[in-house]
Amino acid sequence: MSDDRGACLWFTGLSGAGKSTIANLVIDELRARGHKVELLDGDEVREHLSKGLTFSKEDRDENIRRIGYVAKLLARNGVIAVTAAIAPYRAVRDEVRSWIGDDFVEVHVATSLEECEARDVKGLYAKARAGEITEFTGVSDPYEAPEHPEIRLETSGRQPIESASEVLIWLHDHGFARLPID
Amino acid sequence: MSDDRGACLWFTGLSGAGKSTIANLVIDELRARGHKVELLDGDEVREHLSKGLTFSKEDRDENIRRIGYVAKLLARNGVIAVTAAIAPYRAVRDEVRSWIGDDFVEVHVATSLEECEARDVKGLYAKARAGEITEFTGVSDPYEAPEHPEIRLETSGRQPIESASEVLIWLHDHGFARLPID
Repeated sequence: MSDDRGACLWFTGLSGAGKSTIANLVIDELRARGHKVELLDGDEVREHLSKGLTFSKEDRDENIRRIGYVAKLLARNGVIAVTAAIAPYRAVRDEVRSWIGDDFVEVHVATSLEECEARDVKGLYAKARAGEITEFTGVSDPYEAPEHPEIRLETSGRQPIESASEVLIWLHDHGFARLPID
Repeated sequence: MSDDRGACLWFTGLSGAGKSTIANLVIDELRARGHKVELLDGDEVREHLSKGLTFSKEDRDENIRRIGYVAKLLARNGVIAVTAAIAPYRAVRDEVRSWIGDDFVEVHVATSLEECEARDVKGLYAKARAGEITEFTGVSDPYEAPEHPEIRLETSGRQPIESASEVLIWLHDHGFARLPID
C-alpha cells in the first residue's frame, strides 16, 4: 500500500485569477514526483455530478459540497485531489474543510478583481458588465476571500510557474509532496 | 506508490437480495488483506451527490452514473470502490462499465423475487404491494438482470459468507485481491 498522504488542494479565487493555470502546473509536477493526483475540473463535475444545478447561491454551494465529498474520498486514499472551482462562499468552503480536516489545503489565488477584469481572457467580465451573464462572481455575485488560507498567492507581477513553485514548496514542507526527482 | 489494482465492484440485485450483507463481508476481508476499499453506500450517495433526484427511471439512472463516476476516479487510483446500489436498468450499468473497462466487476446477487419478498427484512415489499411505496423495483418497477455479469451469486440455501468467499476467490483469480494473511 502507498504511504503517500492524500490531500484536497483547493484553488479558490475570481474567474481569470489564474487558478487552473497554476493548478495544472502543480499537478504536472506532483505527477512527475510520483504522486497520485486527480483534477476535479469544474465543468466535468457539473456534467457528471451536478447536472441540473443552477448558479444560485444554494446550488453553487451544493456543487461545492459534491466536489468536496469526492475530494474527501480520494484524499483519504492517498490521492491529491485538486480543484480550481471558484467556490465564492466562505461558509461552504469551511464546511468542506471540516470534513477533510488537516488534509484540506486552501490556496487563495489572490489576483485582484481589477487585474482579472483587465485581462478578461475569456471575455466573461465584459459580458457580465453588459448583463449578458448574471450571477457572475465579483461583478453581480459576491466573492468572499479566505481569511486564513493555508497558502495565499499574490500573483501580481509574477509568472504562474513562480506561484506553482510556492505551492509545491509548501506541500513539501508540510509532508504532502516528495522532493523533485533530479 | 501502490501497485494495487483498483476496481469498481458493483453488487446489483433486488431489494433484500443480500447485496449489502455480502458486500460488507467482502469489504472487511479486502481491508484485512491490506487493500484500499471505499463503500459507496446508496443512502450516503443520495445525500451527498444526488439530493433532489427522485426514483423515476431518469433520476435513478443519473444517480447510478454519479456513483459510477466516483467509482471510476477511485478505481484508477488503486482503490476498490464497492457499491450495492440496486441499479435496476441494464443500459446504465453498461454505460458505467464502458467508462471503467476491465476494472468493472458486476456481481449479480441473484436472489429471486419470491425469496426476497418472503424474507422482506425491512417490510418494504409489503408496503410496495399495499401501494404505500411506488416505483419499487421488482414490484412496480422493472429489474433487468445482468446477462453477462462477471459473477453471479446463487444465494438460495447459502450463507452470506459463502457468497462473499466466492467473490473473493474470483477477485484473487483475476488479479484484484491479494491472498489472505494467515
